[in-house]
Amino acid sequence: MATPQIKTILYSYWRSSCSWRVRIALNLKEIPYEIKPVSLIKAGGEQHSNEYRELNPMEQVPALHIDAVTLVESLNIMQYLEETRLHRPLLPSDVVKRAKMREICEVIACGVQPLQNLSVLIHVGEEKKDEWAKHWINRWFRAVEKLLGSCAGKYCVGDEITLADCCLIPQVFNARRFHVDLRPFPIILRIDRELERHPAFLAAHPSNQPDCPPEAHK
Amino acid sequence: MATPQIKTILYSYWRSSCSWRVRIALNLKEIPYEIKPVSLIKAGGEQHSNEYRELNPMEQVPALHIDAVTLVESLNIMQYLEETRLHRPLLPSDVVKRAKMREICEVIACGVQPLQNLSVLIHVGEEKKDEWAKHWINRWFRAVEKLLGSCAGKYCVGDEITLADCCLIPQVFNARRFHVDLRPFPIILRIDRELERHPAFLAAHPSNQPDCPPEAHK
Repeated sequence: MATPQIKTILYSYWRSSCSWRVRIALNLKEIPYEIKPVSLIKAGGEQHSNEYRELNPMEQVPALHIDAVTLVESLNIMQYLEETRLHRPLLPSDVVKRAKMREICEVIACGVQPLQNLSVLIHVGEEKKDEWAKHWINRWFRAVEKLLGSCAGKYCVGDEITLADCCLIPQVFNARRFHVDLRPFPIILRIDRELERHPAFLAAHPSNQPDCPPEAHK
Repeated sequence: MATPQIKTILYSYWRSSCSWRVRIALNLKEIPYEIKPVSLIKAGGEQHSNEYRELNPMEQVPALHIDAVTLVESLNIMQYLEETRLHRPLLPSDVVKRAKMREICEVIACGVQPLQNLSVLIHVGEEKKDEWAKHWINRWFRAVEKLLGSCAGKYCVGDEITLADCCLIPQVFNARRFHVDLRPFPIILRIDRELERHPAFLAAHPSNQPDCPPEAHK
């Protein structure tokens, strides 16, 4: 399936948690890729340009150009990588464990993240956005912590890194950005600590992106 | 995989678009199931009861009890049905078509639906909720229409019914509830018309649910 002569390009924004999920998956699977930064804030947002809209009609990052096709939506992209690249499986082989993994992915990707997406926060308004984001992250993290209680091992689902971990870690970073008190979520915190020094996660971290502004470096 | 002695139970609310997606998939795959209605409005919402929270920590419908396990999150549930029941495949066999299908599912499930979910509309407030829902449905339907332009046949992806159709039809119903003008979306409208009389879709329709209040019947 892999055609090495076609370059894999990830359209990414350093702080976008959906881009970050895909960066982790690409790194874990050791797929070489080039990053094309799309600034979500410069000139009202480069994701709204005519050129980028042709790549991603949702006017969001990420988009991945791979195998001569452009794919959008982060869970979909990661699933495609899994189905076309056998190296380092990111889905459990057991069908029920796979479902438990997808529950966590979906709670994060369809539950919490859409509500603290940049375009939604702009719509909510400057003065209310922090309270709004905090409210929803807290609500959904309670559910994630509960789900993890029955399936987590060293990582979200057992002792192997899966797509659920690719979704969780960027969301924990977001929770910290909005000053969510994470102490009520001990399993989430433990998994976050477990993965913070992992090379694939570290290389995907916002502060290690080419478009990370100097003042944001840790 | 199917163990006929274990009853399949769908915890569902008649007007919930996420429950509706799963009802369509169960019907298409001809899996017998029993509906346990969960009222999202009675007594502040039965989904918040202690008993139901044990089944679904997200305090949302649907939840599906099947094969002696309880699963939550609609895309996950449908994917599980697909992986355990070979009858009537709902995913394209081609990997790129499958990705195009998942893009549509994810735009609806992670893009538009979360923003017009009941709990979010309550948080937005009575006076602003209609404008809010309309804004987001319009924005995301423009993207869905664009995606469909390159993959739709008779249905969302080619000429076979897939999970994308299970996601689209309930969302069109929601758009009408919020008085979204659908004329700018001719492909969406055409697919909706194509499927409105399909037995599996018809049986899953809110007005054909045991918990549909008499005054809401068409």
